[in-house]
Amino acid sequence: MRIYLAGPDVFLPDAAAIAAAKKEICARHGVTGVFPLDPIEDAAATAAPQRFMKIYLWNEAHIRSCDALVANLTPFRGPSADAGTVFELGFMRALGRPVFGYANAAANFRDRTLAFLGEAARPRREPDEWEDAEGLHLENFGLQDNLMIDGGILASGGRIITRAVPEALRWSDLSAFEECIAALASARQN
Amino acid sequence: MRIYLAGPDVFLPDAAAIAAAKKEICARHGVTGVFPLDPIEDAAATAAPQRFMKIYLWNEAHIRSCDALVANLTPFRGPSADAGTVFELGFMRALGRPVFGYANAAANFRDRTLAFLGEAARPRREPDEWEDAEGLHLENFGLQDNLMIDGGILASGGRIITRAVPEALRWSDLSAFEECIAALASARQN
Repeated sequence: MRIYLAGPDVFLPDAAAIAAAKKEICARHGVTGVFPLDPIEDAAATAAPQRFMKIYLWNEAHIRSCDALVANLTPFRGPSADAGTVFELGFMRALGRPVFGYANAAANFRDRTLAFLGEAARPRREPDEWEDAEGLHLENFGLQDNLMIDGGILASGGRIITRAVPEALRWSDLSAFEECIAALASARQN
Repeated sequence: MRIYLAGPDVFLPDAAAIAAAKKEICARHGVTGVFPLDPIEDAAATAAPQRFMKIYLWNEAHIRSCDALVANLTPFRGPSADAGTVFELGFMRALGRPVFGYANAAANFRDRTLAFLGEAARPRREPDEWEDAEGLHLENFGLQDNLMIDGGILASGGRIITRAVPEALRWSDLSAFEECIAALASARQN
């Protein structure tokens, strides 16, 4: 079983070390981790003149080659997960394969958005409902992120694992990641 | 031709008015706009006990029923587009149908991220390369958003239209949206 390892981990200064650690966890559970930066042959990517398009097509080919996806949904420069990761999650869901997510952050989406907006958040007339300074509503379903993310993961048969870890460890702690891998590996055996 | 109208427009206080305005533009170009909040029958959604899951499944059914998608990529509570919109973009790309995006913001992704990080951004040794306070790199391809978004749109045959509009009008100005619809409608006729 090949698992695509989606996440903003690619932006880390030690991306190669995180990739190796994630792959080692996958191997320990009898599955193969595929990191976005892994080398891959793809004719369309070879033909693409622009670097960003090559990377896009490599990632798309990696995802298509995998049986499942595990996304690092730890909030990234705002209340939501990294945009590239979310794109890949939607892509894999549409392929009909299991998608899992984990986040090293315990607060739910509404509370993170409130913290992000600070003074700019305004209460609505309805109890416990909020909007931003421009009147745009804050989703309030007690979910990990925008409902399309939680919904897509659950609809695929996947799970979302969250962990409260010290902020300094949120890009390196892999215990929630390992729980996703263990769930996928054990589902395959049943 | 049915076009799914993805975007954080659903959170606007006047979401119904924006939906009507977008559908009117679609009709003028001879295509049908499908708004996420439009009513739809879906057996799985009917069976789902939770409200958020019903909404997820309705949106997924809407997307599957459409021939193309136009996403409002105007930055939403951070440097990137709304996470739900990005999920839907990846989903439609995986279905192999055209996806277009527009944004009422002219700055590119790197510059928006630099503005978002402010003092927390640090220059790297390489010229014109930046990282955040935790060392995570800032994508620097001159794109509209994370490369998966731009790449997915271009790989699908779509386009990204950006417009510098006054900030107060960024949720209501539909000229970039109309340019996407016109491009889709005219491609269908050729």
